[in-house]
Amino acid sequence: MELDKQLRTNLINSLPGIRGANLIGTINNSGETNLAIFNSVIHIGANPPLMGFILRPTDVERHTYNNIINNGSFTINHVHESFYKQAHQTSARYNVSEFEAVGLNTFFTNKIKAPYVKESPVKIGLQFEEEQLIISNRTRLIIGCINEIIIDDEFLNDDYILQLEKTKSVGVNGLETYYNLKKLAQLPYAKP
Amino acid sequence: MELDKQLRTNLINSLPGIRGANLIGTINNSGETNLAIFNSVIHIGANPPLMGFILRPTDVERHTYNNIINNGSFTINHVHESFYKQAHQTSARYNVSEFEAVGLNTFFTNKIKAPYVKESPVKIGLQFEEEQLIISNRTRLIIGCINEIIIDDEFLNDDYILQLEKTKSVGVNGLETYYNLKKLAQLPYAKP
Repeated sequence: MELDKQLRTNLINSLPGIRGANLIGTINNSGETNLAIFNSVIHIGANPPLMGFILRPTDVERHTYNNIINNGSFTINHVHESFYKQAHQTSARYNVSEFEAVGLNTFFTNKIKAPYVKESPVKIGLQFEEEQLIISNRTRLIIGCINEIIIDDEFLNDDYILQLEKTKSVGVNGLETYYNLKKLAQLPYAKP
Repeated sequence: MELDKQLRTNLINSLPGIRGANLIGTINNSGETNLAIFNSVIHIGANPPLMGFILRPTDVERHTYNNIINNGSFTINHVHESFYKQAHQTSARYNVSEFEAVGLNTFFTNKIKAPYVKESPVKIGLQFEEEQLIISNRTRLIIGCINEIIIDDEFLNDDYILQLEKTKSVGVNGLETYYNLKKLAQLPYAKP
């Protein structure tokens, strides 16, 4: 608690270790798109197929949150190593859509209202399912149900596990340090 | 929904991308230790310093959950590349402590009741703060407040960001695929 505030934030943010770098795409009811990078996307459950992410307090305006609440639709898009700098840049404050500002393209399907990132190797479309307000610091856990998955078959192995060394998805530690991934091993289900 | 159940679980589990592999250590009131691997540890906030993880439904016995609720104490320990196979093995069902079963050592301090993993390069001691029951599938978000951090100074850069290529912490995708990390870049705070 005695550390400089910025250094403390950096330290605490980096403690969980590596996390997936994901872009969340949304759209408002006027058709204006929004794109924001998140490092907190997690698996919630496979049956029903649920994913979630942590959203910071909504005492300042959060386009991602407002858009999800308004039309129930959002996309999660893996960040490929070829555009991680553009993905990072979505965290700046723009007056136009981050798609336009950072030079990434939208991609729409008829299953999901929200925009995908065309360049992303793993595109997941979700329908808002539930939110939990965390009392301790007023952040929110936002949960969606998976409606659509757009990936090349070659990215899955025979066990249907996504091969991140093929998708070339990057990881991020804290808010700013990006990592490439090198596969060590797929281990068998553990038995005593 | 038409996929084989196991393949579907594999696919859905691997969609969020890379996540940190962390061992959570707890102890019951008889002094019996427990150690379990989790891929869902996330940052909740820096002020107060909060971390969380997702715990599966408690309709079968969950030692980690029971121990945390009973004495409010748990530790989060990064998995170093030298012991990721032992860490994975904690997910098997044992009748003895997983520390003993997989050959990892406990480490105790006077600030936290729960055991750390002695071999871990990043040891975080937490006090239980809050739980949120997720309605959609009865999993829980467990949140703790950071009480103690045990790391070598050399693992932090001048910005106090943990350098995962120095801690040699591994990542995991889904429940079984482990990855090494190679640093790409630390990007500056994004401005338009």
